[in-house]
Amino acid sequence: MPSLDLTMSSIDLTRTICDIDSVSDREGPLADLIEESVSAVPHLRVTRHGDTIVARTELGREQRVVIAGHIDTVPINGNVPTRFETIDGVEYLWGRGTVDMKAGVAVQLKLAAELAEPVADITWIWYDHEEVSEAKNGLNRLSQTSPELLAGDFAILGEPTRSQIEGGCNGNLRAEIRTRGLRAHSARSWVGDNAIHKAAPILDRLAAYEARSVEVDGLVYREGLNAVGITGGIAGNVIPDECMVHVNYRFAPSRSAEEAVAHIHEVFDGFEIEIVDLAAGARPGLDAPIAQHFVAAVGGTPMPKYGWTDVARFSRLGIPAINYGPGDPVKAHADDERVPVEQITDCERGLRAWLTGADS
Amino acid sequence: MPSLDLTMSSIDLTRTICDIDSVSDREGPLADLIEESVSAVPHLRVTRHGDTIVARTELGREQRVVIAGHIDTVPINGNVPTRFETIDGVEYLWGRGTVDMKAGVAVQLKLAAELAEPVADITWIWYDHEEVSEAKNGLNRLSQTSPELLAGDFAILGEPTRSQIEGGCNGNLRAEIRTRGLRAHSARSWVGDNAIHKAAPILDRLAAYEARSVEVDGLVYREGLNAVGITGGIAGNVIPDECMVHVNYRFAPSRSAEEAVAHIHEVFDGFEIEIVDLAAGARPGLDAPIAQHFVAAVGGTPMPKYGWTDVARFSRLGIPAINYGPGDPVKAHADDERVPVEQITDCERGLRAWLTGADS
Repeated sequence: MPSLDLTMSSIDLTRTICDIDSVSDREGPLADLIEESVSAVPHLRVTRHGDTIVARTELGREQRVVIAGHIDTVPINGNVPTRFETIDGVEYLWGRGTVDMKAGVAVQLKLAAELAEPVADITWIWYDHEEVSEAKNGLNRLSQTSPELLAGDFAILGEPTRSQIEGGCNGNLRAEIRTRGLRAHSARSWVGDNAIHKAAPILDRLAAYEARSVEVDGLVYREGLNAVGITGGIAGNVIPDECMVHVNYRFAPSRSAEEAVAHIHEVFDGFEIEIVDLAAGARPGLDAPIAQHFVAAVGGTPMPKYGWTDVARFSRLGIPAINYGPGDPVKAHADDERVPVEQITDCERGLRAWLTGADS
Repeated sequence: MPSLDLTMSSIDLTRTICDIDSVSDREGPLADLIEESVSAVPHLRVTRHGDTIVARTELGREQRVVIAGHIDTVPINGNVPTRFETIDGVEYLWGRGTVDMKAGVAVQLKLAAELAEPVADITWIWYDHEEVSEAKNGLNRLSQTSPELLAGDFAILGEPTRSQIEGGCNGNLRAEIRTRGLRAHSARSWVGDNAIHKAAPILDRLAAYEARSVEVDGLVYREGLNAVGITGGIAGNVIPDECMVHVNYRFAPSRSAEEAVAHIHEVFDGFEIEIVDLAAGARPGLDAPIAQHFVAAVGGTPMPKYGWTDVARFSRLGIPAINYGPGDPVKAHADDERVPVEQITDCERGLRAWLTGADS
């Protein structure tokens, strides 16, 4: 496999790395290429951790920013190799990974090689296994084995945001709310105790629930509490003895994971509750001066990120973090995944302006 | 295979026919034996319809009663051959079919051979495929191909009732009640429309529903309206666009199938309703003089039958019908299926008293 030429345009670089298969568990060859190419850059100190590559400047700057992107993709579905296509006058690069998130990685790689004298020290991280389980996630692994490598004053994750700033993320909780009853033949239903009927107040509370909108560091996060599943029943002639409502709570980053759990216990008071998934959100941290410089350099109006992303891992370490990358998140994982090429150059321009101090 | 000796005791006859495998679809050998044995009885005219045997007296009596029992069983599960066992001083015959319903068939076979001069003409029917689908049911088939063979003034089905009279049966309806919404990512739930939340009023109405108790021909039928299943949900991060509540309505035999459907539409007004199963109940008809004689001969207090049984087929033909046979219905299909032998002789005594006019 040829080496990566980090001086080519970020659009060509995106295309090159998209055409290298790096579906989760197969990141090795792309990680090799990245390691090889950034190791050749004199101002970067490079270390490898599995298939995660970390490249740092060590210029003794007062502040350090962490800029990260994952190099794996979801499975290819006939959408590689990439191609350019124009729709309604907009030029796109089409194919797996163009949105989620190799265009972001390409911009980062190009700037990592180019910026020998950034205004802040930079820790670049390209990591594996973002699209699969928490346990395999390269950034998660790094935060446990070498948390010092994630240290910084501000972090940027290159997840697709249409090259607009999306700050922090909502927290995410899933719970199973259960009712119990007593089985009986439905011809003699009065002998039993219908667990599905007992779930009526659970659905009533969900239907009546008014989700909050909460301002955090200047961004307004909209919450949501929803049933995402319901199951109950044994057979057409049996009174059911159990019903389970699967609930998903998305909560603003001003609320801790513990507070979210307490809220669920309050809403579903009197019912059996099992928390099956819990991840705190992340504050956008856009009130810090370094973040203000970033906002000024990139332009546009920062928005909240609703979905949970790896920025929460930085938040957990006390580092404000935002999402910023090319591509519409709606096209992530889609068979017609495609990124407007203009967003790639926009992202490159925004990051460069900030990191070279061109905004000040 | 040896012939059946219809002069042996009804208990021994029960044991003999239980030890002959006649799981649904394998009724042939037992049907052969029954046909052979009743054909040898001078006062019976015997016809065969598949594996259903019909034996009639033709004495020119003013009234005709139909007495029927199915000869198939659910699958054997290590509970054949039969054996006698005594529990807490009660003697049982243990094994597949002893309750459902070869003890009843044995009593019928014995009396068919014995009673040359009953007070009413009798049509004895031993039929196949009761334990499987409606389409295969021998009595259903006969009602369509030779309805004249089911004609009569009163009918008795030998289903297990602990040798007490259980009149008629409730009707049975199942319906799927649906709500529809709009899918969305649960991180942006306000974009969607949650179909599970919309099902709250369905469960509210079910929980608040007060089932009727309805007197029909002197018996009180208790109704029931229950959710027997509920499903909804696509994934833990998706707002669901559909929810289905599976409802079972057991209705008194005074209500027609059409009236039952109308009631369901009334209760779930405003929701999408699909009727997936519908069978009218059967009136007990215990107010007719012939039935009163039967009650007097058998003794005890007639009770309503809650579950749906083949008596409804007679009801559909305008013939009052009751259930009367040895064994506790709770033990039907059970691995420890067993009949108290005293109930076999009780049933024999009750039927004989009535059919010989010993009660008058």
